[in-house]
Formats: sequence, structure tokens, C-alpha cells
Amino acid sequence: MKFPILIINFKAYYEASGRRAVHIAKAAERVAKELGVNIAVAPNHLELALVAQSVEIPVYAQGADVESPGAHTAHVAVDNIKEAGASGLILNHSEAPLRLNEIAKLTARAKAAGLDVVICAPDPRTSLAAAALSPHAVAVEPPELIGTGRAVSKYKPETVVETVQLVGRHFPDVAVITGAGIESGEDVEAALKLGTRGVLLASAAVKAKDPYLKILELAKPLAAGPP
Amino acid sequence: MKFPILIINFKAYYEASGRRAVHIAKAAERVAKELGVNIAVAPNHLELALVAQSVEIPVYAQGADVESPGAHTAHVAVDNIKEAGASGLILNHSEAPLRLNEIAKLTARAKAAGLDVVICAPDPRTSLAAAALSPHAVAVEPPELIGTGRAVSKYKPETVVETVQLVGRHFPDVAVITGAGIESGEDVEAALKLGTRGVLLASAAVKAKDPYLKILELAKPLAAGPP
Amino acid sequence: MKFPILIINFKAYYEASGRRAVHIAKAAERVAKELGVNIAVAPNHLELALVAQSVEIPVYAQGADVESPGAHTAHVAVDNIKEAGASGLILNHSEAPLRLNEIAKLTARAKAAGLDVVICAPDPRTSLAAAALSPHAVAVEPPELIGTGRAVSKYKPETVVETVQLVGRHFPDVAVITGAGIESGEDVEAALKLGTRGVLLASAAVKAKDPYLKILELAKPLAAGPP
Amino acid sequence: MKFPILIINFKAYYEASGRRAVHIAKAAERVAKELGVNIAVAPNHLELALVAQSVEIPVYAQGADVESPGAHTAHVAVDNIKEAGASGLILNHSEAPLRLNEIAKLTARAKAAGLDVVICAPDPRTSLAAAALSPHAVAVEPPELIGTGRAVSKYKPETVVETVQLVGRHFPDVAVITGAGIESGEDVEAALKLGTRGVLLASAAVKAKDPYLKILELAKPLAAGPP
Repeated sequence: MKFPILIINFKAYYEASGRRAVHIAKAAERVAKELGVNIAVAPNHLELALVAQSVEIPVYAQGADVESPGAHTAHVAVDNIKEAGASGLILNHSEAPLRLNEIAKLTARAKAAGLDVVICAPDPRTSLAAAALSPHAVAVEPPELIGTGRAVSKYKPETVVETVQLVGRHFPDVAVITGAGIESGEDVEAALKLGTRGVLLASAAVKAKDPYLKILELAKPLAAGPP
Repeated sequence: MKFPILIINFKAYYEASGRRAVHIAKAAERVAKELGVNIAVAPNHLELALVAQSVEIPVYAQGADVESPGAHTAHVAVDNIKEAGASGLILNHSEAPLRLNEIAKLTARAKAAGLDVVICAPDPRTSLAAAALSPHAVAVEPPELIGTGRAVSKYKPETVVETVQLVGRHFPDVAVITGAGIESGEDVEAALKLGTRGVLLASAAVKAKDPYLKILELAKPLAAGPP
Repeated sequence: MKFPILIINFKAYYEASGRRAVHIAKAAERVAKELGVNIAVAPNHLELALVAQSVEIPVYAQGADVESPGAHTAHVAVDNIKEAGASGLILNHSEAPLRLNEIAKLTARAKAAGLDVVICAPDPRTSLAAAALSPHAVAVEPPELIGTGRAVSKYKPETVVETVQLVGRHFPDVAVITGAGIESGEDVEAALKLGTRGVLLASAAVKAKDPYLKILELAKPLAAGPP
Repeated sequence: MKFPILIINFKAYYEASGRRAVHIAKAAERVAKELGVNIAVAPNHLELALVAQSVEIPVYAQGADVESPGAHTAHVAVDNIKEAGASGLILNHSEAPLRLNEIAKLTARAKAAGLDVVICAPDPRTSLAAAALSPHAVAVEPPELIGTGRAVSKYKPETVVETVQLVGRHFPDVAVITGAGIESGEDVEAALKLGTRGVLLASAAVKAKDPYLKILELAKPLAAGPP
């Protein structure tokens, strides 16, 4: 997994469903190439294979089930995520919380399959627990700020700083990224200055009138130099 | 929803992941056109949009979450299933059992969105409860036969007959289909003779060396005449 | 199961925890004896055995897990509910919704164990599905009225009437009771007049300053004569 | 929380349901007093208040739900566990696995309520994540040994040792106990020698012909001296 990184989560937004998922992913790809920065897109399960076949930037799944490929109707298996063309996996988003034991299994399995793994957590202490499972990154996201437009990097900087310190002390190989309420390039810049190595965001990019222009703004701070 | 119908459930089979999903779906489409019969394919969530853009036969989702489109990471919304190009929805498969209240909501929402709705159930009594929710069809599938190659239409014909009678008496507008252990054209024929209006199957088609030839065999009984 | 019945659900109210559960149950027992009416109490799991040993009126569990007795930490098994002294079981309360297939299994198992079974449902159509599973009673409770003090029997009488008609037409052996927002004897009386055979309520009794007096008021309409 | 400790989990065993729960708890109490050792009993939810009122040794709940006391039918709230007379809480047993975010919340809430908190985990890495949440103890239990009679302390000593080292290095304030397959006093002694500070067991005590005698055997190694 390469850092600093901007991860765009399409969630289950109608604005990113069907063909629009490809449109937004291509906008992200264009910015990634123009600025020479790391951007990953996380489309909804429904468009994962379609998007993965349409762009060359990293595509992440928004989650996974713990079962192996096989007779598991409506389950999303780690190995099938890879077969669908993805190269990463987001686990335990506050909108899709997972059992501890399953996060541990999924992390090990996804790493074995060569996927990048990002575990989300709502606060510093839970982020530390997530980091103990050895993902590539933990994403600290206070749920009360998600979707509010009030950026964690501005409204809860102490949460970000405490997570960076706590994880850095115990598990320095695990990168800390952050998210929640990120709306502008300025918010991203603030997040990087607090010691994170990337940002996870959703609505700002997905709901933008012009996704290309918005993603360009959001990604510029990543081009400024290695945090 | 058109009957009689053959529904091919790709589950989370590795053999139907990535590009192979499109390959199997195209084989089904070829058979549907050659025989003039109704075949629907139900790819894994990961390939839903990709498959829906690749074939013209009905594409069904293997399940759905109850949330509306929006900020719901890793959730699959009914309206997004439609946006992805699908025209139907399988609910409550024994490998993905759902809450009663959610099946009720999902059925109403999917019908409002113009999707075909099939609710699975493990036995006659539960099928009756499912039929009370007014889907287009219920699929009775004894879980102990799923994936065994021992066809429900041969090994538990009384389960099928009882479901057809019970549902027919109370909710005659709801079609009864069946599944579990179906492996051959003979099994499909037997299912139709028991009064069902279609078959839901998975491994027989998905794991076949030549999916086209196997689906051709499985679908022929549907061409013989209206059950 | 005897009708008409008043079922008092203690939920997880602090006001009904620990020794207070016994206090409220004894108040209900006193009213039941004085008026000669059917009252059941449904204490929280934590106090089930304690309450069952303290009163002679029917004690219902608020829910159950589908596993049999055995190595299932933190699960509540039907047979153990009976061993704890209970004689009934409430399933699928909107605050503890269950999978359709599990409701079917639990209902069959609880009836085999000699327990009364009440399945809750949020609307007429879902109540019909619940009734198809052959419980002793279905309890229709619009979730949006629960805990509001706006009684279903006054604010959504059409929901109650439609459920009584729908269930009565298809499954006349299943009693219909109702709940949500019931606060007074007048609300209970209205519910019985709409054709229900009982009421399921919680906060009105549990949070009353004097549970005995409140339960007395709520139960009086049951003494007026068989609905 | 006092160490070394023997925790007896009654699970949902029929042998520990109803009045038998009190019988086994009293046997444990007798041993605790005779040997002067720490023994806690964890009855099923159904008998929690009853047992807590019957014995003076610590009583632990087998699990909890994340909701606060209130209108939550069939949920078990931390504060109500305390009101029922318990003094501790087991979380995330492999038979009742919990979401990471909920374990974090429940741990904080239970500690605030003055309850002992033990988080179970299936392996060393997951135990480390559990320890990051600051419970009083983590209990490492390989699920494949639970209930087999093949003691973790004999058949997977390396799992125990690795957990003791890993947790000890990062979170020295968190005690490590162990369980799975423990059947004899010898197994308990082996567990203590590996560096653990207690044992969590179930069937050996619950299913014993004479619970008192069996618990006496199991608890004796705790009396030998501080591990």
C-alpha cells in the first residue's frame, strides 16, 4: 500500500451507482495521473468488477464476509474480491461494523491474498486494537462527524493526534489515516499535518457537481510532498 | 416475472467470479434464446453491474440490505440494484437468511421499483409465511439437500407438493418454485411435474465443465410446454 | 394460552431490573387474582428465573435464541426458558427482530415444549406472515407508536382492524393482540373493541409510580366480559 | 478483579439451568471458602439474578448488549447486569462473538459501572487487540479445543505462552487467563505454570456428577501460591 493516499468511498450513494460509478472512478484516475498521487476508489459491491475493469488505479472493496469462496449466497469473499480485480479492502467502517474475530481473520486472509487492508475505528483506543491486528492502515473516523462536513482534522484534531501517537508507539508499521467530515483540500492538508498518512472520504467527491474538479482539489495536498 | 423459469444462482463460487461470471451468464443467454425459455442469472454482488451490462436476459441480485441508497458503506440497496441493471431479487436464501420484518420491507420496496421478487424458505410452513408477503414467487429449498446432488424433486417430493398446495390455497397469485440438489434435466422435469413453476439451482450450472451444455440440458424441460 | 390477556413487557427498563422485577410481577399477580383476569409478565432475561420463582401468574420470556441447550455462551435456549419456570415466549418484538427461518423454528420448538408463543409484527401484512407460522397469538405493533403514549387502538385503529380481518380470514386459530402506545384502561378497552383478544404493553405499567394501581386500571377492561 | 481466578461458565447447559444453576454456584462458593481462592460463576442470563441473590462469590454475566437500560426488549444492559447483582462480565466468547466497536464500548461502560471485564479471544494476535481495549483480563481460548477435553495448556501451550508474552509486552496491566478443554486440576496447574493468572472453564464443572468435588480438584492449584 502506497502513502500518502486518498481513498474515495462510494458507499451506497445513488450518485455513484450503475454507470456513474465508472464515471467517478475515471475522474479519480485522471487526477491520480495528472498529480502523480495515490488515489484509490472503493465502489459499492454491485459495481466492483465493473469499475475494476475500467480503471488502472487501485480499487478497494468496502467490506467482505468471512466465508471462503463457495456456496455462500449473497456473501462477498476475499478471494473473489481479488478475482473481481480489486487490490484492497476496507474493514469495519462504522456503517458496516464487524466482529473482532472476523476482522482478525479477514485481515490475515486479505494480506495473504495480496490485498491492501484498511481497518476503520471510531476512536483512538479502538484504533489501537485494530492496529494490533497488523493491517496496512487504520482509519480513525469519529462516527458523529461522518457526513457532516465538519472535518475531523479541524473539529477533533486531538482524536487524530492521539491515534497517531498511540498506534505509532505500539505498532509503528501500521499507518494512520483519518476521515469524517472531510470536504476540502484544506481539510486534507490539515489531516496530513496532524501526522496521518492519508484520508478516507466519501460524499465530498461522490456528490460533487464535477467529481474531477473536486477530487483535484482534495488530492492536491498529497502532491505537496511526503508527510 | 415470467414462468416457467430457471434461475441460476452463482453464489460466491470461485468458478463464477470475475470474468467467469460473464462467461456463464452468456451461456445462459444463448440457451434462453435458442430454446425460447425464461432463464435468469444471479451473479455475486461483485459482478452484478458487469454481468447486467453484458447480457440481455434477466439478472437477479442474490440479496439486498434494507437501507435506502446513501451513506451505507458495504450495503446493497434495492434502488442501486436496479441502477446496476438488475431486474430481480432473491431474498432469504438459507445461506443468507433475513429478518421477517426486513423481508417484508424489501419485498414491498423491490416490487415498487419494478423488480421481480423471489423469497426462499426451507419448508412448506415457512414458504406459506413468505408467500403472505406477496412476492412474485417463493422458492422452497430444504437446506439439507442444497449442494448434495440429491434433488428435492426426487428425494423430498412431498415437501414440494405440500408447499404448492399450501401456498396455492391461501395465496394463489404467488408462484412456487423449488431448488436444492437439482443436477439434471430430469430433476427439473420432475420439479415441474410436481406443480412448481420453475427451479432455482447453482452448482450444477456454475461448476459444469461446459456451462452452455449443462444449462441446455437443465432448461429443456421448460421448453416442453407450460406447466 | 388464555384470552383475553394483558402481557406486561419489562423490556430492559432500569425500573424493572433486579429486585424491582419481582415487585412489579407481584403487583400484576395481585391484580390478576383480584380481578380474575389473565395477566402475564415478561421480565428481562436477567430476572426470568427469579421472577418465575416468585409469582404464580404466567411468566413469558422476551425472546430466545435458536440453539438447543448446550455449549452456547450467552444464548437463551427454549428448553432452558421452560426450566427457568416460564410458560410463554414473545418473539420478534420490533426491538429484537428475528430471522423468518428462526421464528419458524422457535415457534415449533416452543410449542413442542408447551410454551405459549406470541409473535410480534409491525403491520397487517407481516402479522399475516407471522400467523402462518401457527403461534398462539400475533401482536401487531406499529413501531412508530411504541413508547409514545399514543395508543395504536386510538391512533391506528385501521391497522388493528385490518390485522384482525386478514389473520381471521386465513388463520382463524391464531389470536390477534395489539400494543404500542397503550397507556390507560381506556386504550385497552378500545383495543378489545376493535376485535383483539389482548394487549401487550410495557412502559405504562413498568414506569408507573404505583404499578399495582396502574395495572389494576389497565386490566379492568379484561374483566368486563369475553371479547 | 482478583487473581489467580477460576471462572466457571455455565453457558446454556441444561445441566446448569433453573434451580441447578444455584446448586452449582453454591458448590463453587463452598470450594472458594474452604480453599480461600477466587472463584467466579457465570450463569446463563436466565438465572443471573437468582444466582446472584444466592451466593456471595463473584457472579459474572456471560455477555451483554450495547444498549443502555430502557426500551430494548430481550436486550441485556450493562447497568442492569449490575442491578441484578453481578460483579463481572465476559465479552466476546467464541460462542457469542461481538463487534470490535461494541467490545470497546461495553468494556468502557462495564468498567465505569465497577464490573470486572474479561474479553475472550481465539488466538494471541486477537488477544492483543482485546488487551488494547483495557479490560481487566483477556482469556485466550482456541475455539477448536473448546469442549474437547484436550486442554489448551497441554495441547497448545505455545498459544498460551505467546499470548502471555505479547500482551505482557504491550499492555502489562491486563491479565491473561486461558481456557478450552480444561478438565482436571492438572490442566489448571499447567495453565498457571505457563504464566496465566487464571482459567475459564465450563463443561468440566457443569457436567460433573458431583460439581463440588470436581470444582475442588480444579481450584486446588490456585491455592498453591500466587502465580
